[in-house]
Amino acid sequence: MTHQQPIGLDALIESCTPGFALPRSFYTREDIYHHDIGAYWNNSWIWVGHISQIAASGDYFLFEYGTESVIVLRDSANDVRAYLNVCRHRGSRVCVEHQGNARVFSCPYHAWTYDLNGHLRGGRAMGPDFDPTQYGLFEAKVRVFEGLIFICTGETTPEIDTGLDQLRALAAPFGLGNLKAAHSASYPVPANWKLALENYMECYHCAPSHKEYSRSHSLKDPSSMTNELVEAMQQKGREAGLPSQVLSLPAEGQQGMNFYYRRYPLYPGYQTGSKSGEPVAPLLGNLTGYDGGTTDLQIGVLNNFLIYSDYVVGYRFVPTALQRTDIQVVWYVRGDAVAGQDYDPDTLIWLWHETSLDDECIIRINQEGVNSHHFVPGPLADMEWGMQSFYDNYLSMIRSGG
Amino acid sequence: MTHQQPIGLDALIESCTPGFALPRSFYTREDIYHHDIGAYWNNSWIWVGHISQIAASGDYFLFEYGTESVIVLRDSANDVRAYLNVCRHRGSRVCVEHQGNARVFSCPYHAWTYDLNGHLRGGRAMGPDFDPTQYGLFEAKVRVFEGLIFICTGETTPEIDTGLDQLRALAAPFGLGNLKAAHSASYPVPANWKLALENYMECYHCAPSHKEYSRSHSLKDPSSMTNELVEAMQQKGREAGLPSQVLSLPAEGQQGMNFYYRRYPLYPGYQTGSKSGEPVAPLLGNLTGYDGGTTDLQIGVLNNFLIYSDYVVGYRFVPTALQRTDIQVVWYVRGDAVAGQDYDPDTLIWLWHETSLDDECIIRINQEGVNSHHFVPGPLADMEWGMQSFYDNYLSMIRSGG
Amino acid sequence: MTHQQPIGLDALIESCTPGFALPRSFYTREDIYHHDIGAYWNNSWIWVGHISQIAASGDYFLFEYGTESVIVLRDSANDVRAYLNVCRHRGSRVCVEHQGNARVFSCPYHAWTYDLNGHLRGGRAMGPDFDPTQYGLFEAKVRVFEGLIFICTGETTPEIDTGLDQLRALAAPFGLGNLKAAHSASYPVPANWKLALENYMECYHCAPSHKEYSRSHSLKDPSSMTNELVEAMQQKGREAGLPSQVLSLPAEGQQGMNFYYRRYPLYPGYQTGSKSGEPVAPLLGNLTGYDGGTTDLQIGVLNNFLIYSDYVVGYRFVPTALQRTDIQVVWYVRGDAVAGQDYDPDTLIWLWHETSLDDECIIRINQEGVNSHHFVPGPLADMEWGMQSFYDNYLSMIRSGG
Repeated sequence: MTHQQPIGLDALIESCTPGFALPRSFYTREDIYHHDIGAYWNNSWIWVGHISQIAASGDYFLFEYGTESVIVLRDSANDVRAYLNVCRHRGSRVCVEHQGNARVFSCPYHAWTYDLNGHLRGGRAMGPDFDPTQYGLFEAKVRVFEGLIFICTGETTPEIDTGLDQLRALAAPFGLGNLKAAHSASYPVPANWKLALENYMECYHCAPSHKEYSRSHSLKDPSSMTNELVEAMQQKGREAGLPSQVLSLPAEGQQGMNFYYRRYPLYPGYQTGSKSGEPVAPLLGNLTGYDGGTTDLQIGVLNNFLIYSDYVVGYRFVPTALQRTDIQVVWYVRGDAVAGQDYDPDTLIWLWHETSLDDECIIRINQEGVNSHHFVPGPLADMEWGMQSFYDNYLSMIRSGG
Repeated sequence: MTHQQPIGLDALIESCTPGFALPRSFYTREDIYHHDIGAYWNNSWIWVGHISQIAASGDYFLFEYGTESVIVLRDSANDVRAYLNVCRHRGSRVCVEHQGNARVFSCPYHAWTYDLNGHLRGGRAMGPDFDPTQYGLFEAKVRVFEGLIFICTGETTPEIDTGLDQLRALAAPFGLGNLKAAHSASYPVPANWKLALENYMECYHCAPSHKEYSRSHSLKDPSSMTNELVEAMQQKGREAGLPSQVLSLPAEGQQGMNFYYRRYPLYPGYQTGSKSGEPVAPLLGNLTGYDGGTTDLQIGVLNNFLIYSDYVVGYRFVPTALQRTDIQVVWYVRGDAVAGQDYDPDTLIWLWHETSLDDECIIRINQEGVNSHHFVPGPLADMEWGMQSFYDNYLSMIRSGG
Repeated sequence: MTHQQPIGLDALIESCTPGFALPRSFYTREDIYHHDIGAYWNNSWIWVGHISQIAASGDYFLFEYGTESVIVLRDSANDVRAYLNVCRHRGSRVCVEHQGNARVFSCPYHAWTYDLNGHLRGGRAMGPDFDPTQYGLFEAKVRVFEGLIFICTGETTPEIDTGLDQLRALAAPFGLGNLKAAHSASYPVPANWKLALENYMECYHCAPSHKEYSRSHSLKDPSSMTNELVEAMQQKGREAGLPSQVLSLPAEGQQGMNFYYRRYPLYPGYQTGSKSGEPVAPLLGNLTGYDGGTTDLQIGVLNNFLIYSDYVVGYRFVPTALQRTDIQVVWYVRGDAVAGQDYDPDTLIWLWHETSLDDECIIRINQEGVNSHHFVPGPLADMEWGMQSFYDNYLSMIRSGG
């Protein structure tokens, strides 16, 4: 679990100016990319999926990021667990199918075999002195929040439970534990993962870059988010069963913005994030009506969700190389909704598919410009305030090595 | 504008032997390649095009090399200017079209908008303390010499004006300000840019590698460039309006060979660089006849031209990766020449197209051999004298960091 | 012949634990890969082919590995010689055809011309002070053992002659000097060369990974290699003209396992390594019958052969990039065997083609898992003992720089 510390990292971190973008090297150096995986991603909570993907004992799926592969499964007691997909013998992947059901995982190379609790069964022909209890699969930490599965593969695990506890009542009406994935898509972009994440973290770019989104979402222009609009939404929200508090943790001024929940209004005529403004799927959870709002939900630094009254979109920005990131998007509807009957997939995904295509382009040209030796980080706008929290968190974690 | 200094660079420079090729590391190390862009290319004059490409105010084209992109344009006062294509906010490319006409450049990401003088107009939603005058596009230095446009993007700008002044009278008869690009081609070669440039800098390889060139150009064998041949050319040249001096700056023994003008004879029967020896386009500028000669013209270390009586070829060797270079070639004819009437493009480009194809191959196998751990730089031949000037200039600039 | 020493290499070597796999960095770091070529491969004996490929004076073939290219040829005295394919002038490849017959090698770039003894003929236009005797092609060391050609390009040459002398009597009955290549194949695998070589060095993986091989070869399970089976093979071997000693050099406990010869039994019903167990080609050399055995032969650390009674398979694991290796396999039959008449190529290659396809897959997923920051080298099984010899040899050679 060791890796090389990038040369001159401390001086590079010192060169960062609060309120300004990060220097070029964070987006262009191979050694910093590898450090990002080993020190940042491996010590962060990552949203990997939903319990509906692994309903039965032995059900599993793989989640991969950077150089890592993780087996997420239901063990024999029906608990969700996650293991590093790395044989404890000579390191082979022990599981090569992306999803399935298994009783054991037998390494394809030398047949070291692990049960659903990660325990090594025996260790073929290893001799009498071999102690298999020392060679179980490395286990990742797991949290399941309202059906959403989060993992952390490293030893330095950010505190998450306090935030999840505070979030629970706010999220409850949406019944997130009862969802099904209606569509999944991956948008590969030739850019460092931080540029892709930063793009998601600010809506300063929404007005110029996202015509479709900006037609319906008041977040694109804070001055358009009038008290009148907010109060109308909150009134309908109370009727529909929605709390209206904002949750933002830690408190401003403290390091990291690990939890964020805020519901804000769509423009009049829009009941949800759709082309027509009309609903695209059955109401979620306990909701009894549309409030004309949408929720921005962030759980940990890396994991982002949008919750409309009738569907949920999850976003993650998965590094696959120094300047290659998979923007992975999942559209969820209520667990009992039936495609073609309760929702039309094309209509459902329209807004965030179009928006992701826009982002692919602007993130790519952002990386192209940042690659210039002449790039000098500029000042962040007020609407980009969320990025500074990310920078603080990121720089702190890579400095200490995770 | 900072970059990492390659580890052990000083010792590597010390290991170079005058009169011998450069050591392997200069052609194989990623960190040295990035230093080449940041310290050498960004502080060199680069020929990027001709004023005929941007005739009107607002006309622009992009020029790209290494990690850099530059917007070259006519401003509202009709002056030629060049700007780094990097937004001063978070670094996005502000211009993505390769050529066009624009009144402003509005960054596709957050809509920071720059005028033709590079000034930032406002800076949307940046708050009252924001001073847009501090965030104009970085401007590159520009020189226009007889219609040829040169830029330098860095702060350490080599002296060029003295040389241009001395060159002016020699170049005048060709009317370079009145040219049109008849054809442009790019020959990508899997080799470091220095190997591609070195190939151009010496004619020791012409006899074995370039059959077509060697049939007509006496430079391939200095002993074949007889006094008789030279005098015949000069006699015709005087009649046709051509000066015959050689210009070579700085003087030999000094560092750098930044300017070079020399006219030398083709073999009898060749009026220009063509398959048949017959003219391929109208006489350039003020010329009144053919002298059976051709001019080697070098302006700055990186920029090379061949001037026949009826056409001009420009060559540059643009790095795109450590071992990937675009050999970019432009064929120019007199500005009023009409394709299909005054010249046939295939006939025009024949010689230097064939010669470039030969070079693609030999530069590639040069790189393959230099990649060997067993490569030891060998001695330069007399006919390779020009390379040492390049080495001196290159080593000096990368040592000091540009 | 110099290269950069990887940063922190000594500490990395110190971190290796005897009896355990190597740490991740040896398989993931670019600088270590380049050091592998310069310090390990260039100072190792490499099997490159068979004398039947270069029967006549001037016959040559190229052998390439990593960044290196070697010309292997018969000189005018009919001796086998090998030269680095790097011009002593500016490093170009001097030979670009993969095989052929030549009197001289004339560099395509500047026409420096070398004879079959590697001597530079002249050196065109190099002036009166140039001494061509100082600029012959660098010569690699060559050993021909029973028709098999081995080279070593570096200056630190491992002792090989003592081992070859001891091996001669054991190998003699197979008549290896009289072979012809019936088929050659290359299996590219996205993994570091060491993972590919390690895969070959142990049969712990045979039972789970190689169904076809395990059906016939008792090596897959040492307990199945009964005295009865061994004695039956040895009895038949004496009748067929086969010695039955084991050769293993240096003695165990000493560093390096450079020579290994052992004949072991196939399971009953198998006369050779074929699908049916039936012979697939004429008996080799002086053999008079089948003994139902096969020979594992290792010559130097990198070179491996399997000798059945009727055919020979040679294996090498040629690095082409950090995580890209060509598994090169050659099937040999007796020199006078005629395809379609004495052997059917598809039948001949079946076993080791299938086995190589299996290995492609498991070596790939081994590399994928080793790439994880979470990979921790595990303990080697008894059946993997040969790998430790390789590790000892490898670490010793890269520490000293070759």
